Amino acid sequence: MVVELIAVGTELLLGNIVNTNARFLAEKCAVLGLSIYNQSVVGDNRERLSDAVRIALKRSDILILTGGLGPTEDDLTKEVCAEVLGFPLVEDKHTRERIEEYLKNSYKKIPENNWKQALVPDGAKILDNDNGTAPGLIMEKFGKSVILLPGPPDELYPMFMDKVYPYLQGLQPETILSRMVKVCGIGESEVETKMLDLIDKQTNPTIATYAKTGEVHLRVTARASDKEAAKKMIKPVIKEIKNRFGDAVYATKEDITLEEAVVALLKKHNLTLTTAESCTGGLLSARLVNVPGVSEVFLQGFITYSNKAKRKLLDVNKATLKKYGAVSEQTAKEMAKGGVFATDSDVCIAITGLAGPDGGTDEKPVGLVYIACYLNDKITVEAHHFKGNRNKIREQSVMRALDLLRRSILEQYRK
Amino acid sequence: MVVELIAVGTELLLGNIVNTNARFLAEKCAVLGLSIYNQSVVGDNRERLSDAVRIALKRSDILILTGGLGPTEDDLTKEVCAEVLGFPLVEDKHTRERIEEYLKNSYKKIPENNWKQALVPDGAKILDNDNGTAPGLIMEKFGKSVILLPGPPDELYPMFMDKVYPYLQGLQPETILSRMVKVCGIGESEVETKMLDLIDKQTNPTIATYAKTGEVHLRVTARASDKEAAKKMIKPVIKEIKNRFGDAVYATKEDITLEEAVVALLKKHNLTLTTAESCTGGLLSARLVNVPGVSEVFLQGFITYSNKAKRKLLDVNKATLKKYGAVSEQTAKEMAKGGVFATDSDVCIAITGLAGPDGGTDEKPVGLVYIACYLNDKITVEAHHFKGNRNKIREQSVMRALDLLRRSILEQYRK
Repeated sequence: MVVELIAVGTELLLGNIVNTNARFLAEKCAVLGLSIYNQSVVGDNRERLSDAVRIALKRSDILILTGGLGPTEDDLTKEVCAEVLGFPLVEDKHTRERIEEYLKNSYKKIPENNWKQALVPDGAKILDNDNGTAPGLIMEKFGKSVILLPGPPDELYPMFMDKVYPYLQGLQPETILSRMVKVCGIGESEVETKMLDLIDKQTNPTIATYAKTGEVHLRVTARASDKEAAKKMIKPVIKEIKNRFGDAVYATKEDITLEEAVVALLKKHNLTLTTAESCTGGLLSARLVNVPGVSEVFLQGFITYSNKAKRKLLDVNKATLKKYGAVSEQTAKEMAKGGVFATDSDVCIAITGLAGPDGGTDEKPVGLVYIACYLNDKITVEAHHFKGNRNKIREQSVMRALDLLRRSILEQYRK
Repeated sequence: MVVELIAVGTELLLGNIVNTNARFLAEKCAVLGLSIYNQSVVGDNRERLSDAVRIALKRSDILILTGGLGPTEDDLTKEVCAEVLGFPLVEDKHTRERIEEYLKNSYKKIPENNWKQALVPDGAKILDNDNGTAPGLIMEKFGKSVILLPGPPDELYPMFMDKVYPYLQGLQPETILSRMVKVCGIGESEVETKMLDLIDKQTNPTIATYAKTGEVHLRVTARASDKEAAKKMIKPVIKEIKNRFGDAVYATKEDITLEEAVVALLKKHNLTLTTAESCTGGLLSARLVNVPGVSEVFLQGFITYSNKAKRKLLDVNKATLKKYGAVSEQTAKEMAKGGVFATDSDVCIAITGLAGPDGGTDEKPVGLVYIACYLNDKITVEAHHFKGNRNKIREQSVMRALDLLRRSILEQYRK
């Protein structure tokens, strides 16, 4: 079955916002085994929206429209789609009550135009909106499905996952199930080489690789008569991938990030962490504090941009800085050790490097980054030469630092 | 004139990447006064791409296609567009030489398929690519322009700004010039209220407002016979906006960010900075180190997530933490003061707050954030109650911290 996405909104046409909804929906449809051949963006304009819907109905089986379901005169998505498909609009009592409930604390008297959102195409499936007032709507006609969803991501994402995802799954003859394996510290081409025989002979389950900054994701997707059968088909493939990549696999769940995997490991072994960042200037720490509950293990960090700060806060030797320079294996090691001793933590991860654009030399080029990890009196240090601009170099440094920390813990606490 | 954007690439249809190119191009077209009514995404497929181009040619004057200009068999954008418009492909000697020059260090022998990129539609304008091997191309026919650009943003953006922007400007009868005024620390609705009379009576120049996290951008756009005339029309409007918003205006240039404005102020007054972050965990520092050359003024920072770290690294009183708690005006003040004294800096900005999702109480709800600035023995502290999720709260905290720092310097160093 072929899905087509239509985003409705003048703010997209003006370039005020990025169409992240399209990426979200496209990825989920891919996971469901549904093909998308066309995506489009159109403004809140009756004629052009109507044209876009007609064109899409000719070439696709399922249309997903996002946006334009608000209470204002400008919002036309529901009206236009109902007209094109020939559904009259009627008030839905249940939806009216939900809107009343949702808005009762915001207004003394709910503005009249809000009741427009209680009008639904007669015969449409209504998807309750738990995070706003516009319900989602599914119209079925001519063997096609037209699905209307609210534009704000915090309304769209949960509604899609809870209600539309199972609906789309139900339209298909087979159950499609997928699982993600996340691998870190190996390049995409190496991952593909190691997987070549499996990828070449794949039919069901299939394996797809996705390269991200500093990591590679492998999606294993099976089609079967039911969920249990699909699970059974996926299991040995996941096991085989884990065999081939060993410690490089940091997660086998879709929504685990590298920083979450690292924080989980720290918690498991009851280790407290300090960060000591030079060229990344707080990015590593900011990634770690993304994880709710990180405060149990991550107590403090240092940003030591200057040599003086490295000396003063982390007790790096003046002689080391003079002899080897701030960007050196020796300085990285002393930063990591200094971080542990300045704070009584169990482990410290230190980063020092040249993020550019200036300051590179033949001997120490832009992109040269040293990362050190101090854990239980053992220091591991890595030298990297990253490519790309200032941001790219920093992002890769953070990924490698998280991975070095992860591997250092795994190594020392392996039973 | 109506522009239409077509992004070509299966990775967009699969949701592997977000279509940030569309946002970039849409915004630039809006600045140029060009309307966009439709954007679309289509895969590397001859038939569907050809259909998309035909549909777009019917309803728009200028087509901008991005992506699908690579050297592989899959890359079809140039071939399909040349066919639809009836341009034969011929090898361009100049482009072949540029490709040879660009790739000579990467290969012993340049792979045969790369020469495909030297084929151009006969009669097309050729836009040299300074950051890759695929040239941009402009085909003119039936009074329409079809513009093909490479997909990678680091090739697309400079090529668009250097070569396509002036081309599009030249297609229009008038010169369109715009300038941006960036305002911080005032909400969008307050900005709009203060600007209402100007916005209401606007015809030429026009004023448009854009709400961003923690700031508002105002774009003033004039149409005139030439650049000088447009400049003259814009100048008094910019002056009037500056009058109305005073210190809240932090930049009157498109590409100056708040952190850049702050770093410039620090440099101007020869002030060194320390950061002391709790709930933002390094995000403020990471924003600052985005600015090349920041190392002159930003020497170090502390991430003090735990109470112990606040005591040990920033010398916050145990009694203060006990009596008022970590999230309090008093703690924020002591953090800022401690940051200056621990490092001999001139100024320290401190953030402590509750980013959630857990840990909130009636008295101290999630979103409560204190920001303090210590400069020349003067401490200013602000309490905020931010809405939104963990990330949103942190982002707003960072914006307000940068702004507090900016305003504190302005205030003390006003002549």
